[in-house]
Amino acid sequence: MEFSSKLLENAVNEISQLPGIGKRTALRLVLHLLKQPKEQVEGLTAALLRLRNEINNCQSCHNISDTTVCAICANPNRDKAVICVVEDIRDVMAIENTGIFKGIYHVLGGKISPIDGIGPSQLMIASLVEKVKSGSVKEVIFALSSTMEGDTTNFYIYKQIKDCEVTTSAIARGIAIGDELEYADEVTLGRSLMQRIPFENSFNAM
Amino acid sequence: MEFSSKLLENAVNEISQLPGIGKRTALRLVLHLLKQPKEQVEGLTAALLRLRNEINNCQSCHNISDTTVCAICANPNRDKAVICVVEDIRDVMAIENTGIFKGIYHVLGGKISPIDGIGPSQLMIASLVEKVKSGSVKEVIFALSSTMEGDTTNFYIYKQIKDCEVTTSAIARGIAIGDELEYADEVTLGRSLMQRIPFENSFNAM
Repeated sequence: MEFSSKLLENAVNEISQLPGIGKRTALRLVLHLLKQPKEQVEGLTAALLRLRNEINNCQSCHNISDTTVCAICANPNRDKAVICVVEDIRDVMAIENTGIFKGIYHVLGGKISPIDGIGPSQLMIASLVEKVKSGSVKEVIFALSSTMEGDTTNFYIYKQIKDCEVTTSAIARGIAIGDELEYADEVTLGRSLMQRIPFENSFNAM
Repeated sequence: MEFSSKLLENAVNEISQLPGIGKRTALRLVLHLLKQPKEQVEGLTAALLRLRNEINNCQSCHNISDTTVCAICANPNRDKAVICVVEDIRDVMAIENTGIFKGIYHVLGGKISPIDGIGPSQLMIASLVEKVKSGSVKEVIFALSSTMEGDTTNFYIYKQIKDCEVTTSAIARGIAIGDELEYADEVTLGRSLMQRIPFENSFNAM
């Protein structure tokens, strides 16, 4: 792509470094911004800079938070003895949206992935193991994605806490509610058969 | 969407104002930026701010340019008597990529679109008409998109210059080279039949 303006080229190059945004999309976004009032561009850039410079993580669960302890960890009604292990803040938001979970989270910040150069030391695993070893935790729920990396991470953590007095569990995998069996993939359908549950437990009631 | 951090929420809200970017994509982009070095976020925001504050348009063709006259208008090898009328810089880039066009451009900055509140006065139409009336222009090539808005804009301009001594033309519409007839839409196929050209002119050679 050849640009008639260096300023334009710089802006497009910067935006196209974002994941999933190619040069054409970047150009479209930049041209859109050019048509907006200056205040909007200033608002956007100020929000990004403030976020990057002032962002904090909760000392306890490592979730993104403006305070040293996040609202979930600070909530006296949440059961601190039940910890749900997730990858990042999006998983926390997804689980919070269900309104079902009353425990707290532990945000790892990613999954063990040698291909991407992410080892256990780059994730918030040590503080989780420490928390469990301190004896204050009753249950650890693994809620990482069911990929090779997710399974590796789950297993890596499990090995370190399996001798502690703690229950470990994983979220149920199966056919989504409302889905047709015939369209489900074989692995999911196979797992949901193998891990079938007593019928009287299968209703939506909590 | 409920956020655990105001900073995060602000950044997501600002990014999701961009066209084609929803809240989920915005969150993904913001979380990506959080994992990048500070310099990258600073580079991105600086590029956007500089672009918005320092951008210039070519005095002659109104294309985005860092100089008062853009490289194409300033090029002595370009034929200033042939003007291709386009909507925005993306069209200029697309035509330049063909390497075929040796004239200059006139960038309108949009199309007449009453629904979006865009009238002729918001577009760079007056300066085009003026240029044509000055008598220095031999041919005006209309290359707007073939939508109702594009046709309206073409016709609006055409009405004002049709009494001048100038040739007007429109880029050819038809079946794309390499496309199968059976998959072409009826309107395009119909037009390409009606506007058929002498066989000896139909080869790729210029």
